[in-house]
Amino acid sequence: MRHYLSRLFLLALLTTACSFGTMAQQTLTSPDGQLTMTFSLTADGTPQYKLDYKDKIVVKPSKLGFELYAPDKDLLDGFAVKSVDRKTYDNTWTPVWGETKTIRNHYNEMAVVLTQGATNRDLTIRFRLFNDGLGFRYEFVRQPNLKEFVIKEERSQFAMNGDITAFWIPGDYDTQEYHYHISKLSEIRGLMKEAITPNAAQQPFSPTGVQTSLLLKSNDGLWINIHEAALVNYACMHLNLDDKNFVFTSWLNPDVQGKKGYIVPPMTSPWRTVMVSDDARDILASKMILNLNEPCKIKDTSWIKPMKYMGVWWEMITGKSTWSYTDDSGLKIGVTDYSKEKPNGRHGATTANVKRYIDFASAAGMDGVLVEGWNIGWEDWFGHFKDNVFDFVTPYPDFDVKEIHRYAASKGIKMIMHHETSGSTRNYERRMDKAYQFMVDNGYPAVKSGYVGHILPRGETHYSQWLVNHYLYAVKKAAEYKLCVNAHEAVRPTGLCRTYPNLIGNESARGTEYEAFGGNNPNHTTILPFTRLKGGPMDYTPGIFNTKLTFLKGEHSYVHTTLCKQLGLYLTMYSPLQMAADLPENYEKYMDAFQFIKDVAVDWDDSKYLEAEPGQYITIARLAKGTQNWFVGGITGDDARTTTLKLDFLTPGQKYIATIYKDGKDADYRTKPDSYVIKKGYVTSKSKIKVYEAPSGGFGMSIMAVKDKAALKGLHRLK
Amino acid sequence: MRHYLSRLFLLALLTTACSFGTMAQQTLTSPDGQLTMTFSLTADGTPQYKLDYKDKIVVKPSKLGFELYAPDKDLLDGFAVKSVDRKTYDNTWTPVWGETKTIRNHYNEMAVVLTQGATNRDLTIRFRLFNDGLGFRYEFVRQPNLKEFVIKEERSQFAMNGDITAFWIPGDYDTQEYHYHISKLSEIRGLMKEAITPNAAQQPFSPTGVQTSLLLKSNDGLWINIHEAALVNYACMHLNLDDKNFVFTSWLNPDVQGKKGYIVPPMTSPWRTVMVSDDARDILASKMILNLNEPCKIKDTSWIKPMKYMGVWWEMITGKSTWSYTDDSGLKIGVTDYSKEKPNGRHGATTANVKRYIDFASAAGMDGVLVEGWNIGWEDWFGHFKDNVFDFVTPYPDFDVKEIHRYAASKGIKMIMHHETSGSTRNYERRMDKAYQFMVDNGYPAVKSGYVGHILPRGETHYSQWLVNHYLYAVKKAAEYKLCVNAHEAVRPTGLCRTYPNLIGNESARGTEYEAFGGNNPNHTTILPFTRLKGGPMDYTPGIFNTKLTFLKGEHSYVHTTLCKQLGLYLTMYSPLQMAADLPENYEKYMDAFQFIKDVAVDWDDSKYLEAEPGQYITIARLAKGTQNWFVGGITGDDARTTTLKLDFLTPGQKYIATIYKDGKDADYRTKPDSYVIKKGYVTSKSKIKVYEAPSGGFGMSIMAVKDKAALKGLHRLK
Repeated sequence: MRHYLSRLFLLALLTTACSFGTMAQQTLTSPDGQLTMTFSLTADGTPQYKLDYKDKIVVKPSKLGFELYAPDKDLLDGFAVKSVDRKTYDNTWTPVWGETKTIRNHYNEMAVVLTQGATNRDLTIRFRLFNDGLGFRYEFVRQPNLKEFVIKEERSQFAMNGDITAFWIPGDYDTQEYHYHISKLSEIRGLMKEAITPNAAQQPFSPTGVQTSLLLKSNDGLWINIHEAALVNYACMHLNLDDKNFVFTSWLNPDVQGKKGYIVPPMTSPWRTVMVSDDARDILASKMILNLNEPCKIKDTSWIKPMKYMGVWWEMITGKSTWSYTDDSGLKIGVTDYSKEKPNGRHGATTANVKRYIDFASAAGMDGVLVEGWNIGWEDWFGHFKDNVFDFVTPYPDFDVKEIHRYAASKGIKMIMHHETSGSTRNYERRMDKAYQFMVDNGYPAVKSGYVGHILPRGETHYSQWLVNHYLYAVKKAAEYKLCVNAHEAVRPTGLCRTYPNLIGNESARGTEYEAFGGNNPNHTTILPFTRLKGGPMDYTPGIFNTKLTFLKGEHSYVHTTLCKQLGLYLTMYSPLQMAADLPENYEKYMDAFQFIKDVAVDWDDSKYLEAEPGQYITIARLAKGTQNWFVGGITGDDARTTTLKLDFLTPGQKYIATIYKDGKDADYRTKPDSYVIKKGYVTSKSKIKVYEAPSGGFGMSIMAVKDKAALKGLHRLK
Repeated sequence: MRHYLSRLFLLALLTTACSFGTMAQQTLTSPDGQLTMTFSLTADGTPQYKLDYKDKIVVKPSKLGFELYAPDKDLLDGFAVKSVDRKTYDNTWTPVWGETKTIRNHYNEMAVVLTQGATNRDLTIRFRLFNDGLGFRYEFVRQPNLKEFVIKEERSQFAMNGDITAFWIPGDYDTQEYHYHISKLSEIRGLMKEAITPNAAQQPFSPTGVQTSLLLKSNDGLWINIHEAALVNYACMHLNLDDKNFVFTSWLNPDVQGKKGYIVPPMTSPWRTVMVSDDARDILASKMILNLNEPCKIKDTSWIKPMKYMGVWWEMITGKSTWSYTDDSGLKIGVTDYSKEKPNGRHGATTANVKRYIDFASAAGMDGVLVEGWNIGWEDWFGHFKDNVFDFVTPYPDFDVKEIHRYAASKGIKMIMHHETSGSTRNYERRMDKAYQFMVDNGYPAVKSGYVGHILPRGETHYSQWLVNHYLYAVKKAAEYKLCVNAHEAVRPTGLCRTYPNLIGNESARGTEYEAFGGNNPNHTTILPFTRLKGGPMDYTPGIFNTKLTFLKGEHSYVHTTLCKQLGLYLTMYSPLQMAADLPENYEKYMDAFQFIKDVAVDWDDSKYLEAEPGQYITIARLAKGTQNWFVGGITGDDARTTTLKLDFLTPGQKYIATIYKDGKDADYRTKPDSYVIKKGYVTSKSKIKVYEAPSGGFGMSIMAVKDKAALKGLHRLK
């Protein structure tokens, strides 16, 4: 303790010393004046920053810099401030799709140019302070003494104000598909082992390593989110915690040789972001990460369309059918003539079955149908680092691409392609042009891509610079073909969908599929919107109505939500791509509740974050694009609650017909998930609606503006 | 020693024991009965083979098998013979280009199917015995207990008959660009350090590691060559020597993680080859490696043309001009607008300079002109594992692609593209389609590709399975565009040019460029045809007339050959792609000697290997395709010699006009390289021509069939 105190004392001394320099300390405030960022140099010339919000500490003094591989010297200390460039920016832009019609991008900026005297190298750190948080990045200018270099580690610190609370998943080079743990920082180490649940490919790196986007709650009530924006040609940033001092330090995802970044200036790092508010709803509402990304680089975006879709998928997940055409695991691309093989009789992606989905989706007014297991190779696709599993263009004999194209088009349904890469990125890149052209030729405007298992090139992991580069390559090339991408198992998003809005979805977290792999925690989806979703939309695939999974046993034999929570997710888990994930025959049992899925929009002019307590509940209202119709969704975690919704966001004087789909009084996700009540009535901006939400329950509500008052006939005010 | 003897004794015992099994020993003889291969199992069920030639030992009992990574057990011992399948094959095929019009493929084959009882796995070893040597390969059939596996090491032994002589270069994962050493096997270890001369990328692996194709001479006069054929999706085989027992064992080129092969049965290994003869000329003549490759897979080969070419290249190598357009190493693709940059005034690939080469090449009746440094990116292309250096489609501002296309076409010249990949294989694969299409659009039927420096994906080396896969991918894709490939720094060839004859050249050895980097040994090119060239043609780039390199000092300030040896190389270094590597202005000083380069053919109906002593001299006569004209070339190593050529390969009764270009009496590569004599006369099949060849000297001779006897007027018989 004495040692610790004396260190603190020394730090105080140094900080004081620094402040005497003319340019060595620089302050930046947010446009609303609530946030203050202070940049300074320590006595040995180490850059550091701190962040305060309304006189509360968000980030204590935290160092910045890089360890480099020889022959390049570290960019850690020995710096002097060469110049400081400030500006204010305020602009409003229109996303191609999103939660709101327009987005305001308003910040104060400070670019600090540092010079390291001993090596005669400049390093720029650019800070942008928004009302909702801080972004900073490193900029490497081409200069005689800083050409190509290799990063040993980025040393960006985020020093927390004591032993605060984190909503965390284990840091891992290969997967984000973990449960969240809510704990004090000091408890992370003790919980890590149980937190690391098995996955097809996983590589945790530290007993105190966690992933971003990371949600934190300070002991004085601040909500803090640490993440990154605009991850381009750079390794994914994880965080490693010094759990004595409660300091997170960036931990870049290494390549196969342990190297963490190959930099050829001119180049910039991604933005490191710290969102902050004393109201959790502001974290949901923040568009800072999108704002830190570059404007849209696709000129004609008319072909990019949000979609509500069904898919031949959950029936394979739940074991009703198979991805593969046969049961013979000895079949191989280029060797096997599938037309001569014996089908197993349980193949999901048959022409007839796909037509069944098309019929149902079309009747429900949906946009698309996804089909997995349509292409040859599934007999032996998984594991063992196989280089050349799928060709992405050859259907199984019982999947008639042309006929399905014709049929889908006749029903107004767009087909969604599936490209499981089996982690083999070279194989995918080699075949990508033909695969995308095949999609164009057969009426598939969007692709769900997957990266299950270990990555090739072998030894690389899912979040290294090499892979980060690959994922964006796929998105950019897809844009050349006017195709949208929904990449699963890729690196978690960082707002790149602003720049490339054809990136309409990602997985990058534990999605609905885990409900069939043992279940998601009831609080899971009350955390994701504060973490995973800050980088971009998630293809969470809600809409499971038949929540009993009879093929599983005990506490795993059911989806860990009520039916109505599945409805609420369409609002709380924002995505321009929303699946109705269950089987047609399951929806047919609950067509009254399915009406909500039919009605709910997937693109919005406005969003109101009505209630939010991470880990406990979220309620969001959204205004459907180009209409006066609102949809409201709410979900809970482990505990039931009753809430009163104020509809004061509605247009005063306007009347609406509202239909609410909510948990029954006896609803319970374990025993009675499908107990629900549907009530219909009219509402106005003065309405207050009382809603009961069961444990892991929720509700969905449609609020349709009335044009013809006759429609109100016989309806009562909804309460 | 006692220990050693007792081991031998044990081996003898075991071998005897084995021979009692019914199928445990199997003998295979070559069609002419001169070669005998014996397969057997040791007492512990280890497969082994031995090879004899005319009662001399070629390969002593040598084990075969694989070490595998867990969970798969090794495929080394515990085998029993399940079945033996024998057949005889005799067929003659016609190469698209080559040294002879047709090639006879004649062998006796034996496929031994082994079963490893403990693991219930089968392994097939297929042997093919030709008159000129042995080929064998491993075949992995898909089976329940042998699915995907990873090779720790292939354990194919080549046990030599004592401390014999090797013509070797150091084993290396990244380069073959080494001098040859001629030494006893026991001397390799002591010479290794001096043998490893520096290179841009190199990774030797063992003090007794050597590369194939390896030439050996037994102490009882046998010439032996160990190499491989049909290297497809498998790591390059190096050899590691046990220099106590003189046993070479295969040493596969590892990947970045040290793993040596990812196998997904059904699959076969490449062929391991042992050529043998008591006459070195038979090694030159052997077509065994081509015969072990699959027949041509390109249906229409009409677009594949041998070429004689010049190039804007040697002037950069010798420092007269530069590849780059500017001297600013800070320029970068995607960031730099070259039209705004200041040219350095020494750029080689200018439109005007290229036209100068086109004019000269066209006047000389050549086929093509290569241009290096035509595309942006050369300012900072080298080293540091840069991912994205070249785009392969953007010319420097002073290189007018369209105008050069027009001008070359008007002069009957085909342009040869240059693609330096800077080792970045992903970048090249991503841009390959556009790059090849650009070639098609601009009249470039062939590409010289390069892989200088370290490989990307980082940590991979030039000869790993990943890279081997890449090189063939490039060749196959080029074939889709009807383009020929001449790949430098790629893995050394293994006869794949039979299957893909658009692979018209490779470097994969120390070529002429090294004459400007310190010089090649005088004996270098007297060894290459016995080693490097057995796998396929080499773009050695002969034809340097101005052998004085004034920019270099001392013993390095000259090419280590006489001018006439440069002529001889056109015959002794077989290639369908032959460069006249020197500058037009240098040829203009020696237009009488240049006549031979103008005349010499690049494709042949027949070849006669007249004289050959590895390390000392080679003389070859070849019949130009579709004509009655012969060309003869000879070269020497360090020592001068006088030889008498018997022209008994000429058609009896036919008269020919012969022109010989030979070293002058005072020719010396160090002091008087351009002393030469040109003599012209008539010859017949009875002619004997006496030729003096200086140290590192040689000669070229054209022998043109006379159709009109008037042409003989005034000519004397050449002697």
